[in-house]
Amino acid sequence: MSFAKLSASIEKHNSNLCIGLDPAVEKIPEFLFEYDDAVLEFNTRIIEATQDVACAYKLNTAFYEALGEKGWSTFGETIARIPDDIYIIADCKRSDVGNSAKQYAQTFFGYFGADAATVNPYMGYDSLEPFLSYKGKDIFALAVTSNRGAQDFQLLEFNGRKFYEMVLERLSEWNTKGNVGAVVGATQGNHLARIRKSYPQIALLVPGIGTQGGSVEEVAAAVESEGAPVVVNVSRDIIFSGDDEKFAAKVREKAFYYNALLKR
Amino acid sequence: MSFAKLSASIEKHNSNLCIGLDPAVEKIPEFLFEYDDAVLEFNTRIIEATQDVACAYKLNTAFYEALGEKGWSTFGETIARIPDDIYIIADCKRSDVGNSAKQYAQTFFGYFGADAATVNPYMGYDSLEPFLSYKGKDIFALAVTSNRGAQDFQLLEFNGRKFYEMVLERLSEWNTKGNVGAVVGATQGNHLARIRKSYPQIALLVPGIGTQGGSVEEVAAAVESEGAPVVVNVSRDIIFSGDDEKFAAKVREKAFYYNALLKR
Repeated sequence: MSFAKLSASIEKHNSNLCIGLDPAVEKIPEFLFEYDDAVLEFNTRIIEATQDVACAYKLNTAFYEALGEKGWSTFGETIARIPDDIYIIADCKRSDVGNSAKQYAQTFFGYFGADAATVNPYMGYDSLEPFLSYKGKDIFALAVTSNRGAQDFQLLEFNGRKFYEMVLERLSEWNTKGNVGAVVGATQGNHLARIRKSYPQIALLVPGIGTQGGSVEEVAAAVESEGAPVVVNVSRDIIFSGDDEKFAAKVREKAFYYNALLKR
Repeated sequence: MSFAKLSASIEKHNSNLCIGLDPAVEKIPEFLFEYDDAVLEFNTRIIEATQDVACAYKLNTAFYEALGEKGWSTFGETIARIPDDIYIIADCKRSDVGNSAKQYAQTFFGYFGADAATVNPYMGYDSLEPFLSYKGKDIFALAVTSNRGAQDFQLLEFNGRKFYEMVLERLSEWNTKGNVGAVVGATQGNHLARIRKSYPQIALLVPGIGTQGGSVEEVAAAVESEGAPVVVNVSRDIIFSGDDEKFAAKVREKAFYYNALLKR
């Protein structure tokens, strides 16, 4: 069964909270720069402080790539420090022709050992296929993202249907193994509720609460509803909760706060 | 002026040919594995053999990421070995919210020093903005890609217009600095000719001839037409032309063959 690891982690940790490990270097507590790899130390302390309250960690590749070759080692080392029973999402938003997509799937699932990857659906089925056919792994395809730019294409309307609905329809068709999820931002009005109702068999990765200001109420309703797992990501508003040696305690507090918010 | 470096390189080398440095490890000549970094050696020999006939090199990040941390060093080292007057395209197809997109722009333009990056438009304007506002750099946004999956979303029709036409329309609006290009595959019927006619101010990166089987005739017509620069990428059919110590000579021959094909 797909998303099995995510479901088990949600149950075990009594949590639908995913913590985004997006270590923007300029926001990391200064004292950590005494360490050889400040970013790894930052991530490690967050993982240690939150591993009983997070069902998943999501690593956005942008923040690791920005550090060059060392960033990739930090990316791998961070994944290695996440306990085995917690779900790991490589937030890479990749998309490419089959030949190249296969390399990406191998990178994130094989080399780094992530459980899921985010992918961009614009290039269609064959760009997702190498991810979909990778045994035991899941995808979250971008459907409605949490940024303003979602208006430009995703929310365009054609004969009464939004473009993202056509994306979700195809994703449903491609979900024969039950390993297809979608990214649906919490900041886009009532789309989340509508999507959950129409496509309960598609797992959801929901960013946008916290710094981005999405509706917690609506997200909590989605979390409670029947269907494939729903995981809610918070990054900045948790990980940058403090700037001194006690930051990890504040991170832990914020993680508990958000996990509680998701339970009505 | 944007795309200035590309225009100058096209003129200087009398070439619209971009060579795709996509070093799939299993296809690299075996004797190169005597070297510390076989991929870098492979790329270097190709660059040395073709630098008078290529206007650009395109590096698809998928093939470098698949090599882990070492791959990123090879990516940077390869870029460093490309002569200064040849245009460099980071084929990364990135897309993310502004905060993360900024990191990607910094990675490919700042850290690695590429002249252009490919981007995926699905997330809209703010996902492209950090690339667009990066001084002296260009983007190529995916419009119609060369794979089968282009049918799934890009070629969907709404009231007589394809979805990719809406993408191109917005790209035109965002092209206030003249640094916006589009990726248009050579394998999608007569779209290339129509796009060139409707949007001559948008530079084009055209993949799909060679292994992928796109129409050389149509591509040559686009190359000859008036407007922003057109650069035609060939990867596999050039770089994997031989498997012994003389492979670079065969690569050179193939590069001349393709560049000549593009001139009617």
